[in-house]
Amino acid sequence: MRFEKAVPVQWLAEFTGAKLIGDEAHMATGINEIHKVVAGDISFVDFEKYYDKCLNSAATVIIINKEVACPAGKTLLVCDDPFTAYVKIVKHFRAFEPLNKNVSDSAVIGDGTQLQPGVVVGNHVKIGKNCLIHGNVVIYDHCVIGDNVIIHANTVIGADAFYFKRRKERVAQYDKLESCGRVIIEDNVEIGACCTIDKGVSGDTIIGMGTKFDNHIHIGHGAVIGKNCLFAAQVGVGGKAIIEDEVILWGQVGVSKDLTIGKGAIVYAQSGVAQTIEGGKVYFGSPVEDAKTKMKELNWVKRIPEIWEKLTKQS
Amino acid sequence: MRFEKAVPVQWLAEFTGAKLIGDEAHMATGINEIHKVVAGDISFVDFEKYYDKCLNSAATVIIINKEVACPAGKTLLVCDDPFTAYVKIVKHFRAFEPLNKNVSDSAVIGDGTQLQPGVVVGNHVKIGKNCLIHGNVVIYDHCVIGDNVIIHANTVIGADAFYFKRRKERVAQYDKLESCGRVIIEDNVEIGACCTIDKGVSGDTIIGMGTKFDNHIHIGHGAVIGKNCLFAAQVGVGGKAIIEDEVILWGQVGVSKDLTIGKGAIVYAQSGVAQTIEGGKVYFGSPVEDAKTKMKELNWVKRIPEIWEKLTKQS
Amino acid sequence: MRFEKAVPVQWLAEFTGAKLIGDEAHMATGINEIHKVVAGDISFVDFEKYYDKCLNSAATVIIINKEVACPAGKTLLVCDDPFTAYVKIVKHFRAFEPLNKNVSDSAVIGDGTQLQPGVVVGNHVKIGKNCLIHGNVVIYDHCVIGDNVIIHANTVIGADAFYFKRRKERVAQYDKLESCGRVIIEDNVEIGACCTIDKGVSGDTIIGMGTKFDNHIHIGHGAVIGKNCLFAAQVGVGGKAIIEDEVILWGQVGVSKDLTIGKGAIVYAQSGVAQTIEGGKVYFGSPVEDAKTKMKELNWVKRIPEIWEKLTKQS
Repeated sequence: MRFEKAVPVQWLAEFTGAKLIGDEAHMATGINEIHKVVAGDISFVDFEKYYDKCLNSAATVIIINKEVACPAGKTLLVCDDPFTAYVKIVKHFRAFEPLNKNVSDSAVIGDGTQLQPGVVVGNHVKIGKNCLIHGNVVIYDHCVIGDNVIIHANTVIGADAFYFKRRKERVAQYDKLESCGRVIIEDNVEIGACCTIDKGVSGDTIIGMGTKFDNHIHIGHGAVIGKNCLFAAQVGVGGKAIIEDEVILWGQVGVSKDLTIGKGAIVYAQSGVAQTIEGGKVYFGSPVEDAKTKMKELNWVKRIPEIWEKLTKQS
Repeated sequence: MRFEKAVPVQWLAEFTGAKLIGDEAHMATGINEIHKVVAGDISFVDFEKYYDKCLNSAATVIIINKEVACPAGKTLLVCDDPFTAYVKIVKHFRAFEPLNKNVSDSAVIGDGTQLQPGVVVGNHVKIGKNCLIHGNVVIYDHCVIGDNVIIHANTVIGADAFYFKRRKERVAQYDKLESCGRVIIEDNVEIGACCTIDKGVSGDTIIGMGTKFDNHIHIGHGAVIGKNCLFAAQVGVGGKAIIEDEVILWGQVGVSKDLTIGKGAIVYAQSGVAQTIEGGKVYFGSPVEDAKTKMKELNWVKRIPEIWEKLTKQS
Repeated sequence: MRFEKAVPVQWLAEFTGAKLIGDEAHMATGINEIHKVVAGDISFVDFEKYYDKCLNSAATVIIINKEVACPAGKTLLVCDDPFTAYVKIVKHFRAFEPLNKNVSDSAVIGDGTQLQPGVVVGNHVKIGKNCLIHGNVVIYDHCVIGDNVIIHANTVIGADAFYFKRRKERVAQYDKLESCGRVIIEDNVEIGACCTIDKGVSGDTIIGMGTKFDNHIHIGHGAVIGKNCLFAAQVGVGGKAIIEDEVILWGQVGVSKDLTIGKGAIVYAQSGVAQTIEGGKVYFGSPVEDAKTKMKELNWVKRIPEIWEKLTKQS
């Protein structure tokens, strides 16, 4: 997320009770995850093995749980629990605003856009022109929807990221990472019924121009879906997956988080994509392989009894 | 779909800018897909390899992108882009009518039927007697629901068919085939929560008498589900699949489009049905096989190390 | 379910037209399934092979379709069709009460709890303190939700159990077992968008303290989910499954009914759990196996051509 107004690092240090190391005059201009940070951003790190990655990132303000040398041009906020400090900042700048009617007064809705009954449009949402939002769709705060977008009934845009930190020592073990990202749906997208597209943790979940989703599709936080993709029903995509343009996923395909599917890849029904796969190819299986290879393997399995028979005859 | 009043083919030719070949006096009485057309219907074809099938079908009016000999008793509408001409006709006769309240004045709702809060009932919908429609269900225009039907909360009946034509040369590559079919739910059906049953492209999606669906089930456009079927949660069925009576699909089964599952078949959980399968049998796997055969294969796979050992000992 | 006031067995006999055998003075205090009955409960049995189990259970009142010797301390209600008699009792004591507004007057909602627009809260529902219920969530009658619970948009809590008795001789073959159980969601639970958690047939479906669900999750009737579990998107859990504390299910995992997943088990994406599995281990596959074993099997399958080659060279 971007702040409306830059925030002094000294204020952040006081607000979180952190010790400030480095440049005291910096202003933070936004919040981001480590894989997306730009200059001005706040990020946090609480595992030693990720220290270097974070300290060498573009982030300007780093919340960290150890006093380390501050790289030039950065400010460190040192505290025992960077996760909690980070969540405190997010909650402050993206405080929950209850809705008291179906369409927030702060939502901006373009000409020619139709909202069917029961649609809920959250605060600060922007919807473009000539969209059709069917009954009982719910759009959470801050989401941005382009022109000529169709969203079918009971779909949910912008629910919270599914992201928790485990605290084994607590009774309720999972601490919620409050998300402050958005969902951005580009022009000419069509989203089926009963889909869910979660907001990013701090960056944006993006559905590219011209992409079409069937029903019951789940898109995890911060995933970036390319242009002109086609996803059949019941596909699930994990957080921060990158799916390039013109990818076709058939029904019930599952895609893990933090990977890339290359441009134009086709993945057959019920397959599971657990790692990055190249574009321009056809895949099948769980985990996926080249579709033809997988089909051959399925045929070889059928021949095991023949192999066994041949083997036992020989001996 | 059926037209309320027959439409002269000359009007259609003018409306779509097509050249009329054949009988100029014909009246079109409806619109249909090639696998379902009856006399009086309009259909369209834009691939040369499907010309014969379409020209030899029962359709009376054929929109086609080549001047060919007109079969007796038919009218051809020749134009460069039959898809666009067809969509123009569909949009004219099934223009979107926005709803300005939850239950359309044109909906007909039978005695003893209960609508819980938040239910959206579209234009021209018919619901029979003694139904119970739970909260926030959305029923799109023109759907027909029988007697004694229960639909659980947040289910969507009659969303658009997921059917697009790819135009690789365009920026937004997918052209939407506007659907004008309906969903017909017969008597004594029960549909779980968060299900989606899409309307047919031009024909009807049918859920047969006495069939019961668990939650999160997806039924694609134009699928025809028989009587007394039982589908467990998260089953997905592709467009135009035909599932005969008394079929049982366990949880998360996926069924491809354009195939038939024979009467009384049972398909175990997470299986994938990619081709037509016979009735009266039990299936498992993705893609499915006879369940016992599949189980044996899974056991043979476990024996490969034993085979390897035996083989290497011999050599 | 528990009755508000104990019910005389003689009244039950008259109401169902059953013949009373055994103690005529008993009072029934509730209704339960055979795996959960306690003293005072009504249960029913209509298959001879389950007679002993039911007659030896803790149930006080047993509806049965054969005159058998009545065990000490019990009352039998003998009738031709125990299923129908049982359903008649359930419908009497849990008659459907239509809602005429979004939040029932009989619902109790704790301090600090926010209901976003379109939320439907059924009769006799209890929601604790500081909960956030997002737009268009539907909560059926009698459900109980703890403190600090978050439920995302369009989720359905407490839809009917998917439980039918087949009557092959009838036109509509499936007879609905009316459910009278509840859903109980404990403190600090978060439920994603478009989830469905069904009520128990007569007992309760329970989501344990601190458990977190992603989107599109289905929990069947009477399932008991432990504390601090983490379920990724599109997981489906069958009726009466028991999932112990701290279990992690990755995306699209399917869990059959009537089994147990032991504490701390981790099940990888798209796996299918068909039988009870031990805690503290990692699983993969459909059906699941130990994850490492499964991975080795997948590698062995790739080596079949090598085996074949070696074998044919030898011969």
